[in-house]
Amino acid sequence: MSAEVVTLSRKGPTLSPILDLTATAMEAVNAIILDRMQSEIPLIPALAGHLIAGGGKRMRPMLTLAGAELVGYRGARHHKLAASVEFIHTATLLHDDVVDGSETRRGKEAANLIYGNPATVLVGDFLFSRAFELMVEDGSLDALRILSSASAVIAQGEVDQLTAQRKVETSEERYLSIIDAKTAALFAAASRIAAVVGECSEAEELALDAYGRNLGIAFQLVDDAIDYDTGTADMGKDRGDDFREGKMTLPVILTYARGSDEERRFWQEAVAGFRVEDEDFDHAVELIRRHDAVSATRERARMYAQRACDALSIFPDGPARAAMVEAAQFAVSRGY
Amino acid sequence: MSAEVVTLSRKGPTLSPILDLTATAMEAVNAIILDRMQSEIPLIPALAGHLIAGGGKRMRPMLTLAGAELVGYRGARHHKLAASVEFIHTATLLHDDVVDGSETRRGKEAANLIYGNPATVLVGDFLFSRAFELMVEDGSLDALRILSSASAVIAQGEVDQLTAQRKVETSEERYLSIIDAKTAALFAAASRIAAVVGECSEAEELALDAYGRNLGIAFQLVDDAIDYDTGTADMGKDRGDDFREGKMTLPVILTYARGSDEERRFWQEAVAGFRVEDEDFDHAVELIRRHDAVSATRERARMYAQRACDALSIFPDGPARAAMVEAAQFAVSRGY
Repeated sequence: MSAEVVTLSRKGPTLSPILDLTATAMEAVNAIILDRMQSEIPLIPALAGHLIAGGGKRMRPMLTLAGAELVGYRGARHHKLAASVEFIHTATLLHDDVVDGSETRRGKEAANLIYGNPATVLVGDFLFSRAFELMVEDGSLDALRILSSASAVIAQGEVDQLTAQRKVETSEERYLSIIDAKTAALFAAASRIAAVVGECSEAEELALDAYGRNLGIAFQLVDDAIDYDTGTADMGKDRGDDFREGKMTLPVILTYARGSDEERRFWQEAVAGFRVEDEDFDHAVELIRRHDAVSATRERARMYAQRACDALSIFPDGPARAAMVEAAQFAVSRGY
Repeated sequence: MSAEVVTLSRKGPTLSPILDLTATAMEAVNAIILDRMQSEIPLIPALAGHLIAGGGKRMRPMLTLAGAELVGYRGARHHKLAASVEFIHTATLLHDDVVDGSETRRGKEAANLIYGNPATVLVGDFLFSRAFELMVEDGSLDALRILSSASAVIAQGEVDQLTAQRKVETSEERYLSIIDAKTAALFAAASRIAAVVGECSEAEELALDAYGRNLGIAFQLVDDAIDYDTGTADMGKDRGDDFREGKMTLPVILTYARGSDEERRFWQEAVAGFRVEDEDFDHAVELIRRHDAVSATRERARMYAQRACDALSIFPDGPARAAMVEAAQFAVSRGY
């Protein structure tokens, strides 16, 4: 018996076009990131580097870079601003890991487990300050306004999520408001500042904001779906983390809303923290599958991704716009 | 038998002149602080208010306000900037309490004990973001540069202090470098931005920076002395906290340097965390007294306070300068 090897041609959207579009500029951004995470205090680059050098998709700075291509900006100002966006993102990841007591991040041991919570909090603060130093060096008050406002919104979203945690009655609207703040605000700001450096019209600035914001919501919805999706490859995230932390993400919200009284009792116990075994998680996945909540979450994600793409329609067609559209399509195809 | 009441005339320097000088402006600053710590997420004003409304001396914004008087600035721009300084300070206090596992702050239960570490970290982030929003509203890139740079320096100082913790061989130079970053940088920035709004000469800007920086060092030295000073009234700080946390502050550094081999063994064990009983702290206080380390620390504080006052000599004599000089004298007289 011989094994027949079938080479499938890759189908569906990919990140390749946006990666290609931004590759050269991203090298400049990475150089700034590596340079500006340095400090005389060795623990700072060690801890920051664990997360920053450890990869990550650089999604947010990529939006700034792609947006700059889209609006035909030819300078280099967006490099520092894109690095600033990544620093803000990294700072929030470090603080998130402390807040959630995370054990892994991007498939590696989380920084807080290696370096402890105190250093992780403080290095987050350092990166956040560095982000503002970079923005000040650029000197655009508009970019500073957009990113400082986004930072305040992110923090509020994180606190709101904390408040909603372990509350089984969280509504879809509340959940959307939380992810709009904690995730989509930085996507929107990252995208929008491209219009600032490009000195675009207000309509173009708002279009880039809308692209980033809707993409961010789509991205977070898919992330939350993946945490309960049975057929999914490991995305570098602990499967079941959201479940054990009692986070009310959309798959759970929908399954709870659609469930029987008995199922609801299970969710009440689980979200309250009394169902943390593997078999409990397996049962949660089974209920979510029964009520098609992963599909429903992905369906909503596709709607937001579509809105993101439509927002770009005021820009001329071309490789930048096509790459950004495909990136949005890719975002919602993840984990299939 | 009748009690004879003797009314003592108050002697020594006080904060009254600087409090009077800045009282009206501080009302405006407090209004901004109360307004801008609000959020739709109720936990944010609750937690922030616990610390902010709970008092505190508003030392740092007071420096901005006094500096503005000193340079004859007549506008209102410094109100937002002073509020921004207080938000940065509050954010660092909240994060410090998480980092140190503090149980009390300003004589009250620490926010992290009431609201938990996650919310405390995130509300710190929120206040930090708000600080930058306020600066952006003011619109001075110079002020933004000074305060973003100070914020990065503070975070580095905090990490450096964490690195030095439980290291008995920490030198006086290392210690000074740490407090220069974690404390004096914000005093310097708070003071310096008064020169920015006043559109002063570079010499005046640097003089205000030097005043704030030296005052900040003096202030921190006295704080560290008070933690081991036997005759001191409760300053709203847990006596012996530094000792139990293995913090290498100047009284300990000097006592260790001046001590016998046997005494050094005690400090090695204590700083390593094996001497945490009340009797150990009492012994530490006794050793520090034996080697005059509190007096020596206070002596150094007086030198820095003097430098702070001398830095003001380029400004004309008058009530503002006199109030700032007396504030520096007061800072080093605390706890006597």
